[in-house]
Amino acid sequence: MSTRLKELVERFGGQLQGSGDIEIVGIAPLDVAGPAHITFLTNPKFRSQAAQTKAAALILSAADDALIGAEYGGTRIVAPNPYAYFARVAQLFEAQSSIPAAPGVHPTAVVDSDAEVAATASIGPHVVIEPGAKIGEHVVIGAGGYVGRDARIGAYTRFYARVTFHARCEIGERGILHSGVVIGTDGFGFANEAGTYVRIPQTGRVMIGNDVDIGANTTVDRGALSDTVIEDGVKLDNQIQIAHNVHIGAHTAMAGCVGVAGSAKIGKYCTFGGAAMILGHLTIADRVHVSSGSLVSRSIHEPGQYTGFYPLAKNADWEKSAAIVRNLSAMREKIRELEKTIKSLTESKTT
Amino acid sequence: MSTRLKELVERFGGQLQGSGDIEIVGIAPLDVAGPAHITFLTNPKFRSQAAQTKAAALILSAADDALIGAEYGGTRIVAPNPYAYFARVAQLFEAQSSIPAAPGVHPTAVVDSDAEVAATASIGPHVVIEPGAKIGEHVVIGAGGYVGRDARIGAYTRFYARVTFHARCEIGERGILHSGVVIGTDGFGFANEAGTYVRIPQTGRVMIGNDVDIGANTTVDRGALSDTVIEDGVKLDNQIQIAHNVHIGAHTAMAGCVGVAGSAKIGKYCTFGGAAMILGHLTIADRVHVSSGSLVSRSIHEPGQYTGFYPLAKNADWEKSAAIVRNLSAMREKIRELEKTIKSLTESKTT
Amino acid sequence: MSTRLKELVERFGGQLQGSGDIEIVGIAPLDVAGPAHITFLTNPKFRSQAAQTKAAALILSAADDALIGAEYGGTRIVAPNPYAYFARVAQLFEAQSSIPAAPGVHPTAVVDSDAEVAATASIGPHVVIEPGAKIGEHVVIGAGGYVGRDARIGAYTRFYARVTFHARCEIGERGILHSGVVIGTDGFGFANEAGTYVRIPQTGRVMIGNDVDIGANTTVDRGALSDTVIEDGVKLDNQIQIAHNVHIGAHTAMAGCVGVAGSAKIGKYCTFGGAAMILGHLTIADRVHVSSGSLVSRSIHEPGQYTGFYPLAKNADWEKSAAIVRNLSAMREKIRELEKTIKSLTESKTT
Repeated sequence: MSTRLKELVERFGGQLQGSGDIEIVGIAPLDVAGPAHITFLTNPKFRSQAAQTKAAALILSAADDALIGAEYGGTRIVAPNPYAYFARVAQLFEAQSSIPAAPGVHPTAVVDSDAEVAATASIGPHVVIEPGAKIGEHVVIGAGGYVGRDARIGAYTRFYARVTFHARCEIGERGILHSGVVIGTDGFGFANEAGTYVRIPQTGRVMIGNDVDIGANTTVDRGALSDTVIEDGVKLDNQIQIAHNVHIGAHTAMAGCVGVAGSAKIGKYCTFGGAAMILGHLTIADRVHVSSGSLVSRSIHEPGQYTGFYPLAKNADWEKSAAIVRNLSAMREKIRELEKTIKSLTESKTT
Repeated sequence: MSTRLKELVERFGGQLQGSGDIEIVGIAPLDVAGPAHITFLTNPKFRSQAAQTKAAALILSAADDALIGAEYGGTRIVAPNPYAYFARVAQLFEAQSSIPAAPGVHPTAVVDSDAEVAATASIGPHVVIEPGAKIGEHVVIGAGGYVGRDARIGAYTRFYARVTFHARCEIGERGILHSGVVIGTDGFGFANEAGTYVRIPQTGRVMIGNDVDIGANTTVDRGALSDTVIEDGVKLDNQIQIAHNVHIGAHTAMAGCVGVAGSAKIGKYCTFGGAAMILGHLTIADRVHVSSGSLVSRSIHEPGQYTGFYPLAKNADWEKSAAIVRNLSAMREKIRELEKTIKSLTESKTT
Repeated sequence: MSTRLKELVERFGGQLQGSGDIEIVGIAPLDVAGPAHITFLTNPKFRSQAAQTKAAALILSAADDALIGAEYGGTRIVAPNPYAYFARVAQLFEAQSSIPAAPGVHPTAVVDSDAEVAATASIGPHVVIEPGAKIGEHVVIGAGGYVGRDARIGAYTRFYARVTFHARCEIGERGILHSGVVIGTDGFGFANEAGTYVRIPQTGRVMIGNDVDIGANTTVDRGALSDTVIEDGVKLDNQIQIAHNVHIGAHTAMAGCVGVAGSAKIGKYCTFGGAAMILGHLTIADRVHVSSGSLVSRSIHEPGQYTGFYPLAKNADWEKSAAIVRNLSAMREKIRELEKTIKSLTESKTT
């Protein structure tokens, strides 16, 4: 399949500079794109490479077009956010080339007669759907998926192979759950009684909004009494752990291996670098950005970038710095003594 | 279903203050409970809220009852550990409302004729049970579970959907394994030979006691020559990694994302905060508590709370402190020079 | 089954000291080995234990043989790398005792007619193999495995139960993928547009070499435009996250819970301790060793051991040191003031 450049502009906007009749078959990076590809420039340091690209067309900003458009010479699509524009074009090519999941229920799937599955939904091999579950229009449940009792899956949501989605949990429209995701297991709730643990039944749900993506092997626990909530547009990478009663605000993104402990309330438009860890019962404001490998041990009430990891060093140097860190209060004591001595020296001098 | 308050006291003990004939249909938090709910007070800061709750009944300590019992006015159950009492009541309501798994083997399950499955056990769709495995009374193996050769699953143990339990491993009674758990994969054992790795077969097992809960996507490796051992009452949260030959003492609890490296020996009644990491071949005493995000790099022989994570700061502040941490030995050198200078100043003064 | 010592030496080399006709039935540690076992000495601190072992035979180095061979008295196999020798002997006994997977396709598996499955391959129950996939000779796909469209699995590679291997990804020969592994999910790629995220289709693949082992619940994302690459002989432990476009050089090993962010380029013969975290777009040279719990925040161009984690302490001591770390720049300021004061004192003294 191919697409004319003018069709892209009709769909996604942007200003066309040059011929709109060229046919494009796909996207490629600046350096490997050929005369049937479209490419894009988002990072100023690749400007000279963009000027030399052999791509038939180039998506770029007005500022970059002013600088290198003439030198490049091919057709340009000028857009305020070339990266987002590229993403949409890539989605278009993906849709053209992908083989759509066939609607219907695979004969090896076990779908309870009390479940409701839309006629346009695709239920893969060895899927299990329990009584009362509702599967929306155009939903795809990949091979080996599990949907618990009374769960709700919104239209156009896709589960890749081997997703587990437990009873009474809900997800909105256009979500993507990757393989190995587990939604709605019991939160880690126990009452300690003389050292041993009495399990506290977890009766809340996981409520997930629209346009939420959840990466491979990520886990989200159901709430204890109330619900765990993931708002619209949240993006979670792989191997993330979200504990019970966490609330994640809309359009917040978390990179791989992040952990969020119970009842943390996280704002909207936040970002969390890989392996960041958020302790329980904290509140994090909107537009907070936490660096990779940082542990958030108290609430954050102001937007901004927050960091807390031990700087890497050659092991021998780390050994030295770590030994001092262990005894920092001794160092502080020494400084206080020096201050005293100097003070007495100064005073004796002036008297 | 509903339960009279006096039935609760007959079952679980505690002192009834007020009418025992009220019928309760469920548990709710202090602020949302209504006249058919029981609620509980465990945190002193909610005392005034408890005094105002609309719940029909309140579980609380004798101390709290003395303070707010009269003001509240409804029926109270006075118990020494109201949180554990609440947990047991919640379990009762859970048992009343849950739909029990039907005994028997689902027609899509593949159960080897040399496996032994108790008649009261429930084997879900697409489960695989290999030869020699023994599945105890009232065990539930959820959809897509896998039980390897000669494995043993004790009575009343429950595997949620998609648990993998490999050959020769054993778990006791009343255990709960959540979705995505993998027990008994090979430990990470290789002999290095001129830079490349020769795999060391892992021939030990994973031996799990009674009343052990294991969270979603947690992994436990089998031992190399001897076994990996998890004693009675251990509670593991989601996404935990337990390496080969680890030994975890009874009633120890680990929060999400914890990692334990090979051959670590961990005591009883310990707790590990989220993402804590324990290095290999260490010994950790009973009743050691490790804070979230802390790396345990040497053995701990005394009970107590241990911590080691870099404090979070605004990124700009962290940049400053991290730069100094990198050069702490330079700072120490400077202080030593100051000491010398001051010493010579002092001496020259006194001479 | 049993094996004569001389057969071991014929297969694996080494120098036989003593009778080669003794029959061995297995391997055991020094302290539990009996007269039908072979054992091994690799750690000098166990020399006296080795001298006393009841094993029929002992694998050890020439240096150790000179020291304790006579005292031990049994048959010795002297080899330059006793640990690798032991590993190979253990593999032999494993092969003798293991029950080989039967070739053929289990009747509950769903194998597309356009997939190519070698006659010697074993396809377990509830496996799904999509069109265009190629499964090589002697491959084992355990129960519940998923192999996507046009994927390639090289000869003798083994997937344990419940591995997910997505479309167009490839793995070479003799690989081992443990349960819960997910290969080839979409990388975490989004274009930010006014705070919300536009998904960037991930069209690259995951390309895995020969002799690669991947631990339970580890995830590897496909590349965005180009591929994610794992070279020959790489060993990944459990619960590792490898992001899109990462490149891992041959014979590099990573312990459990490691995370590698997007486009990181990691050299050959590296090792990463548990829960180490590597940020994106970094380059790490060959033979770099990163300690457990360390965050690699910039490229490393020289081989060596690198470390960066906050040292563990009793919580009260950590509280003190952490408070000072937070205000290290204040401490530095104080030292500068002291320097100034001393300088002026010294100058005033000399004038």
